[in-house]
Parts: sequence; structure tokens; C-alpha cells
Amino acid sequence: DRPLVFISGPCQIESRDHAFRIAAFLKAEAEKAGVPFIFKSSYDKANRTSLKGRRGIGLDEGLKILTEVRSEFGCPVLTDIHDIEQARIAGKVVDIIQIPAFLCRQTDLLLAAGETGAVVNVKKGQFLAPWDMANVADKIASTGNERILLCDRGTSFGYNTLVSDFRGLPIMAETGYPIVFDATHSVQEPGGRGGSSGGKRDFAPALARAAVAVGVAAVFAEAHDDPDHAPSDGPNMLPLEWIAPLLRDLTALDRIAKDRSLAAAF
Amino acid sequence: DRPLVFISGPCQIESRDHAFRIAAFLKAEAEKAGVPFIFKSSYDKANRTSLKGRRGIGLDEGLKILTEVRSEFGCPVLTDIHDIEQARIAGKVVDIIQIPAFLCRQTDLLLAAGETGAVVNVKKGQFLAPWDMANVADKIASTGNERILLCDRGTSFGYNTLVSDFRGLPIMAETGYPIVFDATHSVQEPGGRGGSSGGKRDFAPALARAAVAVGVAAVFAEAHDDPDHAPSDGPNMLPLEWIAPLLRDLTALDRIAKDRSLAAAF
Amino acid sequence: DRPLVFISGPCQIESRDHAFRIAAFLKAEAEKAGVPFIFKSSYDKANRTSLKGRRGIGLDEGLKILTEVRSEFGCPVLTDIHDIEQARIAGKVVDIIQIPAFLCRQTDLLLAAGETGAVVNVKKGQFLAPWDMANVADKIASTGNERILLCDRGTSFGYNTLVSDFRGLPIMAETGYPIVFDATHSVQEPGGRGGSSGGKRDFAPALARAAVAVGVAAVFAEAHDDPDHAPSDGPNMLPLEWIAPLLRDLTALDRIAKDRSLAAAF
Amino acid sequence: DRPLVFISGPCQIESRDHAFRIAAFLKAEAEKAGVPFIFKSSYDKANRTSLKGRRGIGLDEGLKILTEVRSEFGCPVLTDIHDIEQARIAGKVVDIIQIPAFLCRQTDLLLAAGETGAVVNVKKGQFLAPWDMANVADKIASTGNERILLCDRGTSFGYNTLVSDFRGLPIMAETGYPIVFDATHSVQEPGGRGGSSGGKRDFAPALARAAVAVGVAAVFAEAHDDPDHAPSDGPNMLPLEWIAPLLRDLTALDRIAKDRSLAAAF
Repeated sequence: DRPLVFISGPCQIESRDHAFRIAAFLKAEAEKAGVPFIFKSSYDKANRTSLKGRRGIGLDEGLKILTEVRSEFGCPVLTDIHDIEQARIAGKVVDIIQIPAFLCRQTDLLLAAGETGAVVNVKKGQFLAPWDMANVADKIASTGNERILLCDRGTSFGYNTLVSDFRGLPIMAETGYPIVFDATHSVQEPGGRGGSSGGKRDFAPALARAAVAVGVAAVFAEAHDDPDHAPSDGPNMLPLEWIAPLLRDLTALDRIAKDRSLAAAF
Repeated sequence: DRPLVFISGPCQIESRDHAFRIAAFLKAEAEKAGVPFIFKSSYDKANRTSLKGRRGIGLDEGLKILTEVRSEFGCPVLTDIHDIEQARIAGKVVDIIQIPAFLCRQTDLLLAAGETGAVVNVKKGQFLAPWDMANVADKIASTGNERILLCDRGTSFGYNTLVSDFRGLPIMAETGYPIVFDATHSVQEPGGRGGSSGGKRDFAPALARAAVAVGVAAVFAEAHDDPDHAPSDGPNMLPLEWIAPLLRDLTALDRIAKDRSLAAAF
Repeated sequence: DRPLVFISGPCQIESRDHAFRIAAFLKAEAEKAGVPFIFKSSYDKANRTSLKGRRGIGLDEGLKILTEVRSEFGCPVLTDIHDIEQARIAGKVVDIIQIPAFLCRQTDLLLAAGETGAVVNVKKGQFLAPWDMANVADKIASTGNERILLCDRGTSFGYNTLVSDFRGLPIMAETGYPIVFDATHSVQEPGGRGGSSGGKRDFAPALARAAVAVGVAAVFAEAHDDPDHAPSDGPNMLPLEWIAPLLRDLTALDRIAKDRSLAAAF
Repeated sequence: DRPLVFISGPCQIESRDHAFRIAAFLKAEAEKAGVPFIFKSSYDKANRTSLKGRRGIGLDEGLKILTEVRSEFGCPVLTDIHDIEQARIAGKVVDIIQIPAFLCRQTDLLLAAGETGAVVNVKKGQFLAPWDMANVADKIASTGNERILLCDRGTSFGYNTLVSDFRGLPIMAETGYPIVFDATHSVQEPGGRGGSSGGKRDFAPALARAAVAVGVAAVFAEAHDDPDHAPSDGPNMLPLEWIAPLLRDLTALDRIAKDRSLAAAF
């Protein structure tokens, strides 16, 4: 029942300078809205739709920049990892390591992530039911690390489309772990542009409002100063000028959602 | 941007006495919450899962009771119609006639409903995309009657399950017609009990909150004094004691949702 | 285990002359292939995507032409009905009356169809699971008429798309009623062209082969001499020159499928 | 247009003795049916639903047994790999390395698999459209290795359920690579038993017949002497006594499917 947390950043770490600019902007907006802020960015995009998609800045350089962002802005940092070795290395550096949705059933990766002792944010696979995430969390918790976040980023619905089933949020919350709603990947259209994924960022604020009204611990939404020219996830990332009104809406809704007295139901 | 309307009542008109008791209760709760109230109940369940499902009190008796509810409680009344003849008869009596989801593509029924001059609430077929509802509304509007409501009651998602895609609300709103979210049918599990439909009423309040946070004109939620023994839709109807806290949450969320300044997006 | 039946014809009865030409062609092809033939055509398209879609020639004229086709070509005729009155009238004239998929849960229509004594072909709603069709068949059979066919024409799969789940054929066959696979509506893209439905006829022969290999009593596939200019269902109807090779494939596959010894499974 | 290939074996390598017994049986049945046979078995189940699922015999022991199976029975062997290191090691030993469905978008794994020079069988992710597999194949082919097989094992359809969309087979075949239909994983119910996956093996023969009638290069179907007590995939593996009638049906259907003259369509 603690107040909403905001997880944001550009999809990729494009450069030290770019990461710093975006982090500075988001951190300032979050402070204005009175929302704790976590900076998210990726050093490698390991599962691009096609070979032509840009991969990223790499593990070493990426972790260096994330460390600097953390010390400069005093905010926790989050990044995603794709194999056991990366889990071990990144887990020593960042506050939260993230398991990508496609990899949320890979037992060894979950165990390695748990063993780092870092907070682990697991995205629900697009192919999984929300109740299946209890088994996923159990794999991580078997390492003794129960600092687990469960994150919804949409469920397969026909081809090249995801749907957000908001019943999934209270269902996953029954595990006792905090729930994150990923608003920008939920509006992705996987593979929807042939050689890359499409998306409809216009729907992300509405889905974020819905998630907060249902009740979540955090909203995850990637943001960029020029999303239409970003190297990945451009169609679904939010432009920076959307952040202030979005946080204003979400914090107001969150206060009501967390103040509910409706004990009989979710 | 007008304040939220609440549409509720028992799935079926079980008797004059029962309808009156539920209407009195709901009307009082709506007044306490400061929400306009519309009474909904059906005189015939024309598409039960199996023959054994109870059909209802019938057109003549049903319309008589609805008229009495309206004059007793001073609230508009809504009922669903299943063929052209019923549209003509009910359209003279009730304030809002409703097109069931399965019938939302039946051209002659839509035209007949439009021609009554009553407000027409059309439910989006479980088999339709939200953007397909513009064609449905056009059929009604071709009669000159533009008093149309578009209502989402869930979309087919695998077998015996519906999912609420909240992107559909702003998409349908692009038609310019007010949007209704049907919270109790959205949590139905069609045919889920073999000879009848199942449902999970526990999720209805969460989905209603989500819809209001996205932005809707009205929430539709059936209610009953003993839902577990109701002749239809028991598993998804709300018990009466859920209504007060639900309306408290929804009205608070609605004020924020309707006060948004986020012009760039939905 | 009787040999495959072929149900075909133009989606609409466009004129007496057109119906005769298509029936003559199809009947001749079916004879060459040694397949019993049933002529199908509609006198009214009651649920077009938009108002602009052409409706059809009407009940009286349509039934007259169907009667003439039957006596001219000596084949049973099938047409679909949309309300109780039409069921009563058409049921006296045609051999098989068909319940459209959207209407397969309308109890009164199913009862009226059963009461005609004609064979009733019910299409599985796109929103229904195959096991739900047992309840649908029971409604018809409650009239004493057990001359029932159950037909699969696809299931909702995301938006504007259907998928054919071939597990549904043996599941529906457990009712004991003959199963029909509708190959051309299964490749429809409902509402996929905005103001009308799209479709991909190229996939219809492959799906028909799949259905026959699984095991069905009949294949339903609409055909037209100029499908790209047909007033309805153009994108999914088959051109006439596809019929001969299709029937050659289907009859060969049917002999193997009906000769199976695999008693342990479907 | 070459005759059907049969890929089969127990889900896991349980022991050298067990692998030999199953391989001997399947090889003999394939010879009787005149079908080329490829032995498949896994040394590690890396993505079990829950931690309690048995993992497998391990890489070193598993590859040793697969090598012995190959030399004893003179059949190619196939196994799945889960990271780059495994790809390199297994790629030197087995004839076909397989990319699991969940991992089909992991670029580095696809490149590593391609670089081994072995044949690569990639399973289509349950979350991917069939046309998305062209990008997946391109990643492998970029290594210069075009010995690629594309395999369909079902697509997410609601929760805990897969559906086989047989349009996907000709769509994937447009890449020019041979298409494999995985009949036993297509009838899996992922996570359907809470702590493990369920499945309905009864439907596997019907879906295999459908795939062959549509046209495929190979059918993949896991088999076991006691599937109900197998350490993994029990509910969907085939008992050994189903193999002979299945191959009889499939080879007969394959002859017809590969002899088609229907040039106009798939």
C-alpha cells in the first residue's frame, strides 16, 4: 500500500550523455510529482525482431554508465540480463536486474538472478497466464532471495498484438510480491512492422491509469526525447512532454486506489 | 466529460417485488454517491447456454414492471430486445433499449431499434474489434436516431473466457458516442460451467475502476441480493453490499479521469 | 464413415440465371469427382459489416430460385435463416436450413428451426468453444428433430482474424451429429476491410484438406465465377477453376481418413 | 516434395538403456512404414513449469548416449540447446540442433547455432506469427548456414492453451526452408496442471494428419513406453502402440498431399 513508484528511461543506453539527459529530466519530473524514481535502460537488445535492429552499447560500457547515473542522480538503476554470466556481473552493479519476458521460464537464469541478491524484476511471458508466475517467483525465491517484482507487459492476443488483462494484476499480487505494470511494452505490436516491432504509444497513458486504478506498486514506462528516431521501441516509447501530466494523473489515481475500503474483492 | 452514470439492476426481472426492492436499494446508494442511476433488467434471456436455463418473466409483464419502477423511483429504465417486434414494443416503453452482443451485427434489428427513437445501447460483440463498432453505430444512426451508447462487455480470448481490452474504450469513443463499460459481463466465463456460464465477480470492481480511470460515460454492473442463487448470471453479479464502496471508488476516480489535461493522448 | 459431401454455391443468390450457371458447374464437377453435392446460396445477408453491403434478392424470390435449382439439378438445397418467421417459411421449401454463427445461441430460432423438420446446419459461433455446441444441438433436438449438422467456420483469434482449431472437429463429433467444415468462411477476416470483411481464399484449400484428413462428413466452400467482384464474401470465395483439383484432393484424402484403424484416438 | 520424415523419441534421455529401447522400436516402425527416421531426445529440460520438474541427464552424458544411438541405429539424432556454449558443444556431435520456442528470438543463440554448421531446427515461439519466422531464419542464414528447419508447435490461444493454425505451414514454407509440424507439443496445455504442463495426446494424431494433408517435410511427435509416468511431457507424448497406425495414415496422406496439382493455391 505504499505510494506508486515510477520506473522509466530510454529503451537503450545510447550514450553516457543521452542517458544523463533523460535521467535528469525524469528524475526532476518524478520529484515534482512526489514519486520515487528508478532509472531503466538496456546495454544490449538481445532479441530484436530482425538482425538489422541495433543491439546496444554493450555490457561493460552500459554498466559503467548506469553506475554513474546512480551516483549522479541518487536513484536506483535497473537493467535487463540475458544469460547467467550477465546476471552475475550486472547483479553486482545495479539495484534491480530484470528477466525479459521471453526468458521468464529459463530456470538457470532465474536461479542465477536470485543468487545475486539484487532485486529481480521478472516480466510475465506473453505466453503465460498470470497464475503461472507463482512458479516463476518460486524458482527465484528458492535461492533465498525474495526481493522479487512481477511485471505485466501484455499477453499474446492473435498475431502481432498484445492485450493487457487487468485481472492479472490482482492474480499475480496473490503471491505477495509487488506488481509492476509495464505500460509501454504493453502497447507494443510485436513484429508488427515486418523487420521490427510496431506499437501505439497513444494507448500507454490510458493503460497506465487503468493499472494504477486497479492497484500496482509501480508503473514502468520507457521515455525518449525523440522516440520516432530511437534505435528501438520507438513506436511505443513516450515523448518527454507526456511525463508530467501522466505522473499527475497516476499519483492522483494511486491515492484513491490505495485508500480503498472494498475488502470483499480485489 | 459529464460525471459518471451507474446502470444496474438484477439480470432478470424475477418479480415485481424483487425488482422494486433492488431498484430501491440501488437508487438510494446512487443518490448517496451523487451518481445518476439507470435501472436495468431483462424480461427474457433469449440466448441461455442450455435449454435448462430460466428464460424470464416475458415481454408484457416485464415492461409493465419496468414502467412501474420508473414511476416509483424516478429513474430511467433499460432492457434488452431480441427481435424487431420486441424493439418496437419495448421502444415505446423504456428509455433505453439494448442490443445484445451476439446480435450487434443484425442489420434489421439495429434499424428497428433506431427507428423507435429510444436511446439505443449496443453491446460490442465478443467477436468484434472495437473499431468495428463504428459500422454498427452507423446502421442505427442511418435512421436519424443518434442517441446511441456503445458498450464493452469483453472480447473472446481463447475458449470460455473473455478479456477486457481497455484500448477499446478510447477507440470506440472516437465515434463521438458515449461509452459504457459492462463490468459484470466482462468477467463472465461463457459456457464455463457446461450447462451454464460461469464468472468471477471478484474481478468486476477492479475492471470497473480501470474503465473509469481510462474514461467512460457510464459503468454497467448487475447486482442481486442473493447472486449465488440467481436464475441467471449468478457467478458474475455483484452482491448489494459491494455497491456503496464501489460507487465511492468509481466517483473519486471519475473526477480525476475527467479532469485530465493530457491532451496529447487518450 | 460415409463418403464426403460437398456443399457449395455462391454466397448470395444474385439472379436465377447466375444461380443456375454456378449450380450446373458445381454439380457437374461433383459428379466427376463422385461426391454428393448440396447447393448453398443466401437470399439475404442480414449481418453485413456495414450498411453499404448488398443485402440480397429477398426471401420469396430466393426460395423460388432454390426450388427451381433443386428440380433442375436434382440436388438438395441449403439456405440460411435469420428469424423464426423465415425458419418456418424456408423450412417448408429447402432441404437444409442453416443457423448463422452469430445466431447459434438464440434459443427461439433454434427451436423454430428444429420444428420445421428440415435438416438444420448450425454454425459454431466464433465466440464458442467446440464443446459448447452440444448445448446448441440439444436445443434443436428437444423438438424431436435430430437431423442436425454441426459446422465449424472458425473461432475468434485476436481482432479481425479467425483461426481453425481442428481439435474442434472430433470434439463436436462426440455429439454423434455429422460435422461440416466451412473452408471459405474460416479464412474470412471479419471486418478486415473497414466497411466489409476481408479474407484469404488462398488458404481455403489447405484448410479443407486438413479438415478432411482429420475426418468430416462434409466440406462447405462457397464458389463464384468472379469472386473479386461478388457482392459479398468475395475475398474468401473460390474461383470455379479451383473446384476440380480441390475435389480430387479431398476425395483421395477422405478415402484414407475414413479407412483409419487408429481406434485409440480421434 | 520429398517423402515425409518422422522425428521422434522420448522427451528426455532417461538412461542409455531407455533411449536404446525406444530408438530401436521407433526405427523399426519407421522402416516398416518406409519413412526416414530421426531420433530426438533432450539432455536437459531448461524451462520446466516449476522447480520440481526433473531436469535431465546432463549435456555430457546426453551427447554420449545420442552418439551411441546414432551409430547403433544408423539414424540422425536431434537435441535442443539452451545457450551459446551448449550450441557449440552439441553442434559438433548431433546432426540437428534445436532452438526451443521460448528462445527463438535470442539473436546470439541463433547465430551460435548457425555457426556450428549443423542443421538447425527452430521452433516458432508460441508468441510469434508464422510470418515472423522469416526474420528468425535470416538470423541463422546470416552465418552462411542455410540448413534450417522451421517447426510449428502451436500458438498462444487464451491461457494455458495452444492452437495450431495450419495457415502457418504454407506461410512459413514461403521462406523456402522445410517445415516440421510438432504434433505432441501442439497439444500441450502449458502450465495447465499448476506445477507442470498438461496436454491432450488424443488430439495429436488428428493434428498430425491435418499437417500432412496441408503439406509438411516432417512430423515431430514424442513417444514413450509409459507416457503417464514419464518425467516430462507425459500428458502429450504418444504411447508406442500408436506409432504404427499413425505412420500408416501419415504416409498415405503424404503421398496424396505431395501429388497435388492445385497450382493456384497453397
